[in-house]
Amino acid sequence: MPCIAFGRLDDSFSSGSIKAYVAEFISTLLFVFAGVGSAIAYNKLTADAALDPAGLVAVAICHGLALFVAVSIAANISGGHVNPAVTFGLALGGQITVLTGLFYWTAQLLGAIVACYLLKFVTGGLAVPTHGVAAGVGATEGVVMEIIITFALVYTVYATAADPKKGSLGTIAPIAIGFIVGANILAAGPFSGGSMNPARSFGPAVASGNFAGNWIYWVGPLTGGGLAGLIYSNVFMNSDHVPLSSDF
Amino acid sequence: MPCIAFGRLDDSFSSGSIKAYVAEFISTLLFVFAGVGSAIAYNKLTADAALDPAGLVAVAICHGLALFVAVSIAANISGGHVNPAVTFGLALGGQITVLTGLFYWTAQLLGAIVACYLLKFVTGGLAVPTHGVAAGVGATEGVVMEIIITFALVYTVYATAADPKKGSLGTIAPIAIGFIVGANILAAGPFSGGSMNPARSFGPAVASGNFAGNWIYWVGPLTGGGLAGLIYSNVFMNSDHVPLSSDF
Amino acid sequence: MPCIAFGRLDDSFSSGSIKAYVAEFISTLLFVFAGVGSAIAYNKLTADAALDPAGLVAVAICHGLALFVAVSIAANISGGHVNPAVTFGLALGGQITVLTGLFYWTAQLLGAIVACYLLKFVTGGLAVPTHGVAAGVGATEGVVMEIIITFALVYTVYATAADPKKGSLGTIAPIAIGFIVGANILAAGPFSGGSMNPARSFGPAVASGNFAGNWIYWVGPLTGGGLAGLIYSNVFMNSDHVPLSSDF
Amino acid sequence: MPCIAFGRLDDSFSSGSIKAYVAEFISTLLFVFAGVGSAIAYNKLTADAALDPAGLVAVAICHGLALFVAVSIAANISGGHVNPAVTFGLALGGQITVLTGLFYWTAQLLGAIVACYLLKFVTGGLAVPTHGVAAGVGATEGVVMEIIITFALVYTVYATAADPKKGSLGTIAPIAIGFIVGANILAAGPFSGGSMNPARSFGPAVASGNFAGNWIYWVGPLTGGGLAGLIYSNVFMNSDHVPLSSDF
Repeated sequence: MPCIAFGRLDDSFSSGSIKAYVAEFISTLLFVFAGVGSAIAYNKLTADAALDPAGLVAVAICHGLALFVAVSIAANISGGHVNPAVTFGLALGGQITVLTGLFYWTAQLLGAIVACYLLKFVTGGLAVPTHGVAAGVGATEGVVMEIIITFALVYTVYATAADPKKGSLGTIAPIAIGFIVGANILAAGPFSGGSMNPARSFGPAVASGNFAGNWIYWVGPLTGGGLAGLIYSNVFMNSDHVPLSSDF
Repeated sequence: MPCIAFGRLDDSFSSGSIKAYVAEFISTLLFVFAGVGSAIAYNKLTADAALDPAGLVAVAICHGLALFVAVSIAANISGGHVNPAVTFGLALGGQITVLTGLFYWTAQLLGAIVACYLLKFVTGGLAVPTHGVAAGVGATEGVVMEIIITFALVYTVYATAADPKKGSLGTIAPIAIGFIVGANILAAGPFSGGSMNPARSFGPAVASGNFAGNWIYWVGPLTGGGLAGLIYSNVFMNSDHVPLSSDF
Repeated sequence: MPCIAFGRLDDSFSSGSIKAYVAEFISTLLFVFAGVGSAIAYNKLTADAALDPAGLVAVAICHGLALFVAVSIAANISGGHVNPAVTFGLALGGQITVLTGLFYWTAQLLGAIVACYLLKFVTGGLAVPTHGVAAGVGATEGVVMEIIITFALVYTVYATAADPKKGSLGTIAPIAIGFIVGANILAAGPFSGGSMNPARSFGPAVASGNFAGNWIYWVGPLTGGGLAGLIYSNVFMNSDHVPLSSDF
Repeated sequence: MPCIAFGRLDDSFSSGSIKAYVAEFISTLLFVFAGVGSAIAYNKLTADAALDPAGLVAVAICHGLALFVAVSIAANISGGHVNPAVTFGLALGGQITVLTGLFYWTAQLLGAIVACYLLKFVTGGLAVPTHGVAAGVGATEGVVMEIIITFALVYTVYATAADPKKGSLGTIAPIAIGFIVGANILAAGPFSGGSMNPARSFGPAVASGNFAGNWIYWVGPLTGGGLAGLIYSNVFMNSDHVPLSSDF
């Protein structure tokens, strides 16, 4: 059974750890810039029309491709989390210490916030859209939706990247991690927005000053990601595996 | 020539087998949740309009990406069938015993049913659309369509994953398996719906209580998948290969 | 310098060669079924409206994904040509004998024809659309367009699959081969149709009985594919390489 | 710390170097032909309507797929830059000499120009659209947008292809490089156009004779690509690495 480790402060300030925080900052910045940018692009092209199927395809593909790349470019440096829910799920499964995870969170949230302020500038001051549940969908439904789709994401991280038995799946892991987000946005976009990522939702909330419903995108993704970490690590991974962040 | 093996009950209850059933349940749940969810999302965005090309792209891409990931995350545990027609085709080619295959079916069907009930909840009670042939297309045409496109799917499973001579193709096998489903939905969607998977069709039928035409999505996929298993294993695989479910 | 080899009749009737013809037949059938099927699907969804951008995306993605898979599932058996222009380009570069290549052509054309007759049946008798140049585009422009885009396709086959120095590119070769066709259809679709493949154009011509302009899709692709084979093999491949069809 | 190397003239005229220039010429030609072609295709299908979400998807996917393939087919010969900003970023990080880089630039620009003249011919003389900032977006915003998205592209080139520690990421590097461009066009298309590549912008400017704003697509991409090269090579790569163009 995996054990959650708090970690030592000096490990969290090693040269390798600091490079990992930089990598998480850059990857999350670039992912959120592209993803939120695609939503602003839709609003620009349609003069803020309601989302239609072509727009959903544009936004979902953009998030899927950008996350694939963001995970790739950080994979060898930080493990390529790019998402506080992924970091949380990996901590619960004993893959990263809590202390290092907190620095990851900080880097991810800063990256997302900087991305959204950059978007405000380069789009000539257009509004940065925030996540929220759609008409006809309550907060509970939104939370459950985010739990399920984030479970899918973090389970994919475990099965293709964190599991030592992954074999050749590791080669295509970043593609799988990006594409499950693309697929899930195509399903969840018109209901909960399809965040799966507290940083992806927090950056626009900060840049727009609108935190209404933002808690949904913390509670849902962290619950779903945590469940995936606990279930995958306890059911499918060897219990005698020593937890090390460098394994990922 | 491959031989169909019935299997022993104790093998079907080994620790590895039970993990495989859990993996099939989770993968099928996540695949059906995203796939059927994308169809509900289209209905939500368009207020139940008739399918248009942008919607077909959304639904096809969602199924393709989600199946790729669903196969990936189960590949090392259960072989990543995620589909009773794939399990059937692999049983006819001697790649899995009949007994273990029946437990796979149970896990897949349960996963699909749970996915559809979850979708009913998180969408605030929207209708779960079922597969059916379009106007101008008869049941026979629908069955033949499903036979051909499921043949393509299961043939792909054999050529890229089950064949011991697959070589480096094995690395991209889950992508190929997901993407042939995406391609086939773009062709078959407006005619038979493009199921290729009895679980994908059965879950919505249960959740909606509408079983009209559901037999088409058992007869077509099982016939096509079975044909692929018989043809590929007899024409292209070595006859002296000992059938073991762990080979896949 | 590569040399074109005519080949021996007994080599063309070996067990391995016959399996290769079967694999080419099946792969071309499945590729053409999906690709042409996506064009019929667009016509069905839009009641035969003129092509729009969403429809172009649907058709291009379908061809790209389906060709990727069709190449994958034949790669280890026949080399995964699935296209007379690819076979021709490989013959000019000394990668397959002329005699074996003629049997490949036969298998590919038969597969394409069978696919189109199957489509007529499963769609309830809808028209099978043929390739043709658009209004405002002459036959010469169409031929040159097909030369350029087929050059891109066969050059990709050489660089990622046939070149012995391909290294790890070989793992993603089928994806590259499929996706260059998807990209080129997005550019060439509204002008020449974006065939790059005489079998893809010949099957619908036979099934519909309409051969008007079909010569364009022989002259263009064979010229472009042949040029790619001559240029790549002479400029980038070692001249002392012994030509063998099994190298591919 | 990496050092910028000027290089020796005889190295730039070796047989391998000349093959590299040919490969860059062909890859950039084929990439620009498909990418610009998809923009002309949209104009043809819609009778020059303003860009809509479906059109943005078509153009973004085309660029993403075509760049993936263009990088793949030159990867083993020239390193697969296909972009003066990539060459510049690699030169600043000590991965290619300045002298060889200048020949790369020449080959890339020539390839882009030839592609656009070919497009004028095969489309029956349609206008070749040039990059420019959208209404409501100033030149400064356009430059900053291009800096950020080209930073993402060249950072991806470093992390997945140029970094000796890339490991199995190298297998999917061309896909990541192509897809970050696809994702960024979905975000930046309606603002700066989403070039990330001076050759991609210069070819249409030459063929159309319209150089208005073309400087934006030199200043932005070269600044962003250069920053990525300096940051990645200094922060994440070993300083004792000897710079050689063949490393890439």
